[in-house]
Amino acid sequence: MLPESNTLRRIVGMALREDIGTGDVTTLATVDPAAVGRARMVAKAYGVVAGLPVVEEVFRQVDPAVTVMLTVNDGARVGPGETLCDIEGPAQSILTGERVALNFLQRLSGVATRTARFVEQVAGTGARIVDTRKTTPGMRALEKYAVTVGGGRNHRIGLYDAVMIKDNHIVAAGGIAPAVERARRLVPHTMTITVECESLGQVDEALAAGADILLLDHMDNPTRAEAVRRAKGRALTEASGEITEETTAAIAATGVDILSIGALTHSAVALDISLDMIAIEARL
Amino acid sequence: MLPESNTLRRIVGMALREDIGTGDVTTLATVDPAAVGRARMVAKAYGVVAGLPVVEEVFRQVDPAVTVMLTVNDGARVGPGETLCDIEGPAQSILTGERVALNFLQRLSGVATRTARFVEQVAGTGARIVDTRKTTPGMRALEKYAVTVGGGRNHRIGLYDAVMIKDNHIVAAGGIAPAVERARRLVPHTMTITVECESLGQVDEALAAGADILLLDHMDNPTRAEAVRRAKGRALTEASGEITEETTAAIAATGVDILSIGALTHSAVALDISLDMIAIEARL
Amino acid sequence: MLPESNTLRRIVGMALREDIGTGDVTTLATVDPAAVGRARMVAKAYGVVAGLPVVEEVFRQVDPAVTVMLTVNDGARVGPGETLCDIEGPAQSILTGERVALNFLQRLSGVATRTARFVEQVAGTGARIVDTRKTTPGMRALEKYAVTVGGGRNHRIGLYDAVMIKDNHIVAAGGIAPAVERARRLVPHTMTITVECESLGQVDEALAAGADILLLDHMDNPTRAEAVRRAKGRALTEASGEITEETTAAIAATGVDILSIGALTHSAVALDISLDMIAIEARL
Amino acid sequence: MLPESNTLRRIVGMALREDIGTGDVTTLATVDPAAVGRARMVAKAYGVVAGLPVVEEVFRQVDPAVTVMLTVNDGARVGPGETLCDIEGPAQSILTGERVALNFLQRLSGVATRTARFVEQVAGTGARIVDTRKTTPGMRALEKYAVTVGGGRNHRIGLYDAVMIKDNHIVAAGGIAPAVERARRLVPHTMTITVECESLGQVDEALAAGADILLLDHMDNPTRAEAVRRAKGRALTEASGEITEETTAAIAATGVDILSIGALTHSAVALDISLDMIAIEARL
Amino acid sequence: MLPESNTLRRIVGMALREDIGTGDVTTLATVDPAAVGRARMVAKAYGVVAGLPVVEEVFRQVDPAVTVMLTVNDGARVGPGETLCDIEGPAQSILTGERVALNFLQRLSGVATRTARFVEQVAGTGARIVDTRKTTPGMRALEKYAVTVGGGRNHRIGLYDAVMIKDNHIVAAGGIAPAVERARRLVPHTMTITVECESLGQVDEALAAGADILLLDHMDNPTRAEAVRRAKGRALTEASGEITEETTAAIAATGVDILSIGALTHSAVALDISLDMIAIEARL
Amino acid sequence: MLPESNTLRRIVGMALREDIGTGDVTTLATVDPAAVGRARMVAKAYGVVAGLPVVEEVFRQVDPAVTVMLTVNDGARVGPGETLCDIEGPAQSILTGERVALNFLQRLSGVATRTARFVEQVAGTGARIVDTRKTTPGMRALEKYAVTVGGGRNHRIGLYDAVMIKDNHIVAAGGIAPAVERARRLVPHTMTITVECESLGQVDEALAAGADILLLDHMDNPTRAEAVRRAKGRALTEASGEITEETTAAIAATGVDILSIGALTHSAVALDISLDMIAIEARL
Repeated sequence: MLPESNTLRRIVGMALREDIGTGDVTTLATVDPAAVGRARMVAKAYGVVAGLPVVEEVFRQVDPAVTVMLTVNDGARVGPGETLCDIEGPAQSILTGERVALNFLQRLSGVATRTARFVEQVAGTGARIVDTRKTTPGMRALEKYAVTVGGGRNHRIGLYDAVMIKDNHIVAAGGIAPAVERARRLVPHTMTITVECESLGQVDEALAAGADILLLDHMDNPTRAEAVRRAKGRALTEASGEITEETTAAIAATGVDILSIGALTHSAVALDISLDMIAIEARL
Repeated sequence: MLPESNTLRRIVGMALREDIGTGDVTTLATVDPAAVGRARMVAKAYGVVAGLPVVEEVFRQVDPAVTVMLTVNDGARVGPGETLCDIEGPAQSILTGERVALNFLQRLSGVATRTARFVEQVAGTGARIVDTRKTTPGMRALEKYAVTVGGGRNHRIGLYDAVMIKDNHIVAAGGIAPAVERARRLVPHTMTITVECESLGQVDEALAAGADILLLDHMDNPTRAEAVRRAKGRALTEASGEITEETTAAIAATGVDILSIGALTHSAVALDISLDMIAIEARL
Repeated sequence: MLPESNTLRRIVGMALREDIGTGDVTTLATVDPAAVGRARMVAKAYGVVAGLPVVEEVFRQVDPAVTVMLTVNDGARVGPGETLCDIEGPAQSILTGERVALNFLQRLSGVATRTARFVEQVAGTGARIVDTRKTTPGMRALEKYAVTVGGGRNHRIGLYDAVMIKDNHIVAAGGIAPAVERARRLVPHTMTITVECESLGQVDEALAAGADILLLDHMDNPTRAEAVRRAKGRALTEASGEITEETTAAIAATGVDILSIGALTHSAVALDISLDMIAIEARL
Repeated sequence: MLPESNTLRRIVGMALREDIGTGDVTTLATVDPAAVGRARMVAKAYGVVAGLPVVEEVFRQVDPAVTVMLTVNDGARVGPGETLCDIEGPAQSILTGERVALNFLQRLSGVATRTARFVEQVAGTGARIVDTRKTTPGMRALEKYAVTVGGGRNHRIGLYDAVMIKDNHIVAAGGIAPAVERARRLVPHTMTITVECESLGQVDEALAAGADILLLDHMDNPTRAEAVRRAKGRALTEASGEITEETTAAIAATGVDILSIGALTHSAVALDISLDMIAIEARL
Repeated sequence: MLPESNTLRRIVGMALREDIGTGDVTTLATVDPAAVGRARMVAKAYGVVAGLPVVEEVFRQVDPAVTVMLTVNDGARVGPGETLCDIEGPAQSILTGERVALNFLQRLSGVATRTARFVEQVAGTGARIVDTRKTTPGMRALEKYAVTVGGGRNHRIGLYDAVMIKDNHIVAAGGIAPAVERARRLVPHTMTITVECESLGQVDEALAAGADILLLDHMDNPTRAEAVRRAKGRALTEASGEITEETTAAIAATGVDILSIGALTHSAVALDISLDMIAIEARL
Repeated sequence: MLPESNTLRRIVGMALREDIGTGDVTTLATVDPAAVGRARMVAKAYGVVAGLPVVEEVFRQVDPAVTVMLTVNDGARVGPGETLCDIEGPAQSILTGERVALNFLQRLSGVATRTARFVEQVAGTGARIVDTRKTTPGMRALEKYAVTVGGGRNHRIGLYDAVMIKDNHIVAAGGIAPAVERARRLVPHTMTITVECESLGQVDEALAAGADILLLDHMDNPTRAEAVRRAKGRALTEASGEITEETTAAIAATGVDILSIGALTHSAVALDISLDMIAIEARL
């Protein structure tokens, strides 16, 4: 889901301040304030578009007189030459907002595109591709939105909205059972508890302790399949640990419910998109 | 250069709020507040490290009782298994800060590593690899720092600190000459003027107009070489336009002073680094 | 759990700005900056103390030279005349911080005290007393902390960390089944789904749809007991709807797992606590 | 007076961020974005309404497409079943803003209602009921507004806009006379000076020192009456110290000008008000 | 009084961000991070120093390793060549903070110096020189502090802490009497009411209405003297309206209590002060 | 150039909060909310107007229902009695915003007026008058804008956008040549390098090192003229050091390209401008 409007406004405002600072000197010096422009955002590669509402917010903040007309919506699969939106308004404002708008759109579309490729690998299985907390600092809400645009699903938002008991927590608490028990007693009853398991023994312990979700970390596929079998009807199973596009299908075939993949966000690369100015006129 | 301390503090604070929100429920529920831990950040791939001072700031904010002892400094070339730093302090605080610290370090090291690969391609020529404004929103200062750590150099910071006259500005101003003349008249005398040239005709116009820097956009190499020849002693020359690691050496051979490369930041992927907890004890 | 340090710092800073504004004119005009004071916070009524770490943060921000020595910790049951903490440092700073420190401590102790009274009513049953989102704007994290200090437990933090499907959502989605199904499909797999049920028919529907928690709203106790029976082993049950200290025990006796009570926060009154200055001297 | 628009906007924005965070998952998952709703805020108890302009601001921020039509204005005395306002717009937005709107309205109406009960006790006397600085951190401006809505008046805003010399200031300054003299010399001539008096001897001292207002703290009524007699025409008199609804009339009868009462804000409880959704339709 | 520490911190932080932005490129490029420097702030003109605590805060924020040793305190009258403070620490940090420190110190000393010249004109009379709201946006708290350093006194802080009824308010309220009466009824009893009077008739009206302070605006001195006579013992009198150093003594001689002078702040010019680097060494 | 809209909004918002705080008590108490007013801003002295867009922003924030109709634009030369703009809308809002609007307009017009007087001195020469970093903390962007309105030009914005090597940097770097060389190597190629020269020897060194701009500090005019001769065609020349209106013409006659003058901002005094209320009516 797209972050609510206040959050979106704040992120975009921060990005504009970072880029524009005390002013776009080039545009202010060379472009007539009365000049009106028409521009077009065009894909230059194949991918899934994400971030068009962010583009709209960028131009709303730069200048409410700029109009953005979407040709496609977030989630569209596009290819080279395809128009994403048309932009019309004061030429100064279009030029000043261009780079920030593209920086958001290219990165988010990159995340969506990457996600979509993973999602294709699990088509037909019941498995879902979900993200992790390995997001770019400050961009988590938007990157998680882009994952859903690409057909993926979200994991917990941060450290505050779900319990995930990893190896170090287990050591610190003196075992899986006491860790789960303490969490159950202390956190809101609305929160689920995930336990990271590195062996079938831990799977059994976690199930006995009443974990809601088992994170099967760095297991081989036969072990994963056995873990899934044991957990069936008792807990969700989640595979993680350097999952690549190549290994995804085989992991999904083990029957796990969820594959959580850091690369959706930490290794996504920008989708190539350009803003082409079609016309600059004193008055359109 | 690393952003000054107030800026660094603000970015890190924002990232921590984003991840920790109302609290790291898992750690608070499972780890004894009195438990002390020792952890180690270890590289799991070859690359150039960037962002260790950010790691220090993360743990300073999470808990001043955590100590980070650097084993290497930013700029170090590391390989799998190499220790980057040791971390000691309250186990709760180490676990709570782990992910944010890694998110910064992995992304910035990814940028530095990517940059270093491009820089190697121009070794022995006088050409410099520089970044662009195609950075992740909110991360520009840090990503530009990472570029310098990788051996690259920085381009302008944003729209406010240098003039870059591109095709649309030329159209809007009615030509290169009037665009340069207006900018010279209106912007601070301390700012340089770059003019984007797509042909040798434009190169001549820009030189005649007194541009400080010529941005040779999407030219073939022979044309670039001729542009360099014409500009020699009169203006710096900068090549740009989808430069890849493969095409870098040949472009540098044309004699251009600068290669500006968006991929340093918009397509860098995280360098694989992990935080391993070595010991958790009630009292070390 | 106490909100993490950045959040606490921000809330306290806001409260100090609100009260001190451009300066405590009385203290600045009448008290020698060199004068040192000793003060004591003393309970003037029976109750459960909550907020002492906030008191510490208040004086840390007003003046790091002020020392707060706790005599009891949060959660202590105190009575009239009992000392909560001693405060020592520049007399100006103690006087300037006094009211803000008390405003936090009195309100949070009021919440903890109120909670403790409800918790006593369910002693011996397995039922837990939990809070709601009916908190004072801006104080949610602290008020929810105070609830745990009083022996209660927390419900979801806000609208973002758990699904709670109420009557209007059911209407909008076209029934309980489609509402649960859509939520299951769209929200993170780490989130639980609560469904508000106003009849046994809805209880059955919610169970069939796979709800994790049933919110039994405004039911009479026999109906609640039947709902609990049907949900046993399939979902947690939560009673809500104008629960008072008088009705709590009977509701708990129906076997519900959770009683969620808005009055813990929306109708708590301040616990009477005073700050007594014991000595003001030029130099202690 | 209602806080000026920037302040109101900031407080409401903070409350919405606190509750909505990364998004109202339930509503986003279950309610069609195109669905339109009609809702009504209805009193469920007797009281004085305060905070309707805050409700308007809440929905303005959540979604400008939501319209709030007031049926009554702040200050109205209402009873169970009475409509306060009608709300119309996107059903998602109404549901998302509901709780924050109610949290403000219920608390502020609680303060106004509490104030009105005290004000009734002094009807016919010239005495005024005023608030104190014992407000909820962050809510002072709004709670003080609610006091005026309930027929009360405001005391000073904070530590910065009036001098109030209490026992500790007297001790620190070496007596009432030097304390008043120093304050008169150092603070703006536009500020009044209040002196807290615990005996008639202090009343005489304060009058001799030229205090503008005498704060008669914890005196019995005959002493208060004598203090009032001595101060007549020379200073305003203010009674304070655990004043209850029961003791108010008798205190007012002593002739004091002002009764300042912390309970107006520190012990107000929420007025019961609900938001009822009347219709949800795809298109109204 | 100096603004409380949080306010000071915020203003200084804002000024540093404004000047340093993404970094002091010159210093970072040319000065060894290990180099230590000794510098001295020296007056280059006669005046009253104000702002040394702000200088300390500037360097505390730039680098806690910098030490500022004051030679004089705020309020000192200095002349050319006189040392104000010595500064020692990392040479980079001294150079980076220099300009912001001087910008504050020079402006505030300019205000204090200007104020002192006015104060000298009223020596021996009981009249006080006070400031107005004609301050530099963002600098009010500091400029008002500088006025007190120069021997002046403060007027109200802003629109919120005292009532000042001017001509337009009188027109809007339908006369002085109703304006005063409404204000008395609506604002806190702790606030004074000033009425602007342009004639003796208005003076009589304002006194009859019970104004606390009469603002005698743009009157000639004989009229002012008569107004003072009529107000004696009933209200304070304040002269205002383009008062210059030349006209001050004569106005004070009319017996007015207060002269409020916008020029203290809106037309103060910087006092000439320089920072001289005495030594830069790799290690002192 | 006027700062971009977000920056302007933030500065104005801060100034309004500073002045209005919890509310304009006088206006709220004495003026009917329904009353409408017409006011006029009128110059009361000769000068150059700067800041009218800031006035518009002030009233936009105070109340969008206020309309500001400009009679002249920034840059207009006005004299006593000349109307600058008409303001119409709710009388309360006009009165509440008046002082902040005037504080901005008077100070900025003071800077523009001061600048214009310097600019007149260099008319006919090619020399430009530029500002410095000696601006009021927080007001740099606006004061630099006012300089351009007065016909001046801007120097670098802050420490981050251009290199200026001063005496201490030269000492620290071990000479002009290594200082320039290090800067050239480390800062963006888009930044120019200015070197401060105090003798002709240093001029020669700086030229040899390839400085872009020579800052001729505190030289006598014959030396300046010789420096200009040597730099011709190789570097821009900038004169600085306590330049007054009296010395400006002679300095310009030496042929320097630029005169940088701190007094444009650090010693500008407010231009006298008043806001006259023409009519207050319940309904216009």
